[in-house]
Amino acid sequence: MSTRASKRQRMDKDEKFHLIYWPGIPGRGEHIRLALEEAGVAYTDTAHQENGVKEVISQIDTSNQGDTANPPPFAPPILRHGEYTLSQTPNILLYLGPLLGLSPLPTDDPVGMYHVNQLALTALDGFSNEAHDTHHPIAVGDYYENQKDEATKKARDYRENRLPKFFGYFERVLSGDASKGGEYLYGGQLTYADLVLFQTMDGVSFAFPKCIEKLKESEKYDKVFALYERVKEREKIKAYLESERRQKYSQGIYRHYSELDG
Amino acid sequence: MSTRASKRQRMDKDEKFHLIYWPGIPGRGEHIRLALEEAGVAYTDTAHQENGVKEVISQIDTSNQGDTANPPPFAPPILRHGEYTLSQTPNILLYLGPLLGLSPLPTDDPVGMYHVNQLALTALDGFSNEAHDTHHPIAVGDYYENQKDEATKKARDYRENRLPKFFGYFERVLSGDASKGGEYLYGGQLTYADLVLFQTMDGVSFAFPKCIEKLKESEKYDKVFALYERVKEREKIKAYLESERRQKYSQGIYRHYSELDG
Repeated sequence: MSTRASKRQRMDKDEKFHLIYWPGIPGRGEHIRLALEEAGVAYTDTAHQENGVKEVISQIDTSNQGDTANPPPFAPPILRHGEYTLSQTPNILLYLGPLLGLSPLPTDDPVGMYHVNQLALTALDGFSNEAHDTHHPIAVGDYYENQKDEATKKARDYRENRLPKFFGYFERVLSGDASKGGEYLYGGQLTYADLVLFQTMDGVSFAFPKCIEKLKESEKYDKVFALYERVKEREKIKAYLESERRQKYSQGIYRHYSELDG
Repeated sequence: MSTRASKRQRMDKDEKFHLIYWPGIPGRGEHIRLALEEAGVAYTDTAHQENGVKEVISQIDTSNQGDTANPPPFAPPILRHGEYTLSQTPNILLYLGPLLGLSPLPTDDPVGMYHVNQLALTALDGFSNEAHDTHHPIAVGDYYENQKDEATKKARDYRENRLPKFFGYFERVLSGDASKGGEYLYGGQLTYADLVLFQTMDGVSFAFPKCIEKLKESEKYDKVFALYERVKEREKIKAYLESERRQKYSQGIYRHYSELDG
């Protein structure tokens, strides 16, 4: 298989990538970081900059109406690239895919970018958005302690019904012919959808270690767990995960409360 | 302003659009219908076909691994176009945008498609996904009656905090320079993001009529409500809404329970 990195879309080397995201947690910003790290391109990151939080806050301030070229962002992560400002995690990845060699170019595969987007959206829904809702089922702006009873119920449904459903889906994707061999989700090569699945699985494994261990032991989702290890061992991803740039999970999307792990 | 319909991407006229979605509710399938209706292209729809439900169920059956060209879908809506099968609402719209003249072509605006996608994702998050969660905060597979207490709390937070936040965001988008005048969300012309905002507002207005009336009367979101009316009065949208193809809200994403409307 030829490497897709040699077939990136033309990109102005002078235009720096700047990630605007909260410091202190991997969060949704992590999906953007993993794509940039895998591609080996330089980027700046407010999570590691003095006053980085101020930049996040000014971007999502209710006085920000964007500019001539860009609507305002609703929430971080936000990517600045040259004159462009983009937000919404799957949207930033969609933009980065062809630039970083992490999704098929339309000239090679007319619908490849849509299939990769579909897979990334599904992983984000199942393993990120729904995982977050387990500890905040009632109000995102209120404390976990104030919605703990509801969280316990929501987490049970997530562990028993939703997680197996999503794991089963991705096992089917990897068993299907469009994966071209089942090593990666689509087209026989790494795409950003694999990075998203890796990171969301890593997050739910932190939040629900007992539950994920049980799913692994069931041997029903071997292809999914193998993909997780495959991504984790990629040279640049491995180096990144061992670096100080990789932040620890804490009070973000993925939280470990033993009472929610069953 | 030139009409974008004259600058659609080349499309094989023989390839029919076929929407695969549950009958009986507008649901998420409605976003795909509105795009096709606005563009005036012919399409078939399982919602209006005998045995349509069977086709939906076979697509999302756990035995479906997709085919050589297409990963399996996780959930409807699903669009078949020629040999391609696409799923995830915002992904189908992303695909249809340039084909139907409902998003900027890269040759005219290199990041326009990403900005439109970002706006559509935000409207779907705030006015569709979160609206759904108000009546199913604990378990999507369980009855509303079994999570009514939690739903009452969740709906209060949605009415008081989340809805105003999302309305405020779209008012800012329409006030910003990238909207090019504030009639539509982006670039001075209708895009599918406007259709998504219209449909999601229509849905939340059905579910929370008192709350939406109050938000309207506050006069803080005049541009957003004006956009809603502007889309509703477009010739083809108006004709569609008056047709039998437009299904009524019932037990789908948008449900009216007076106890959730405050």
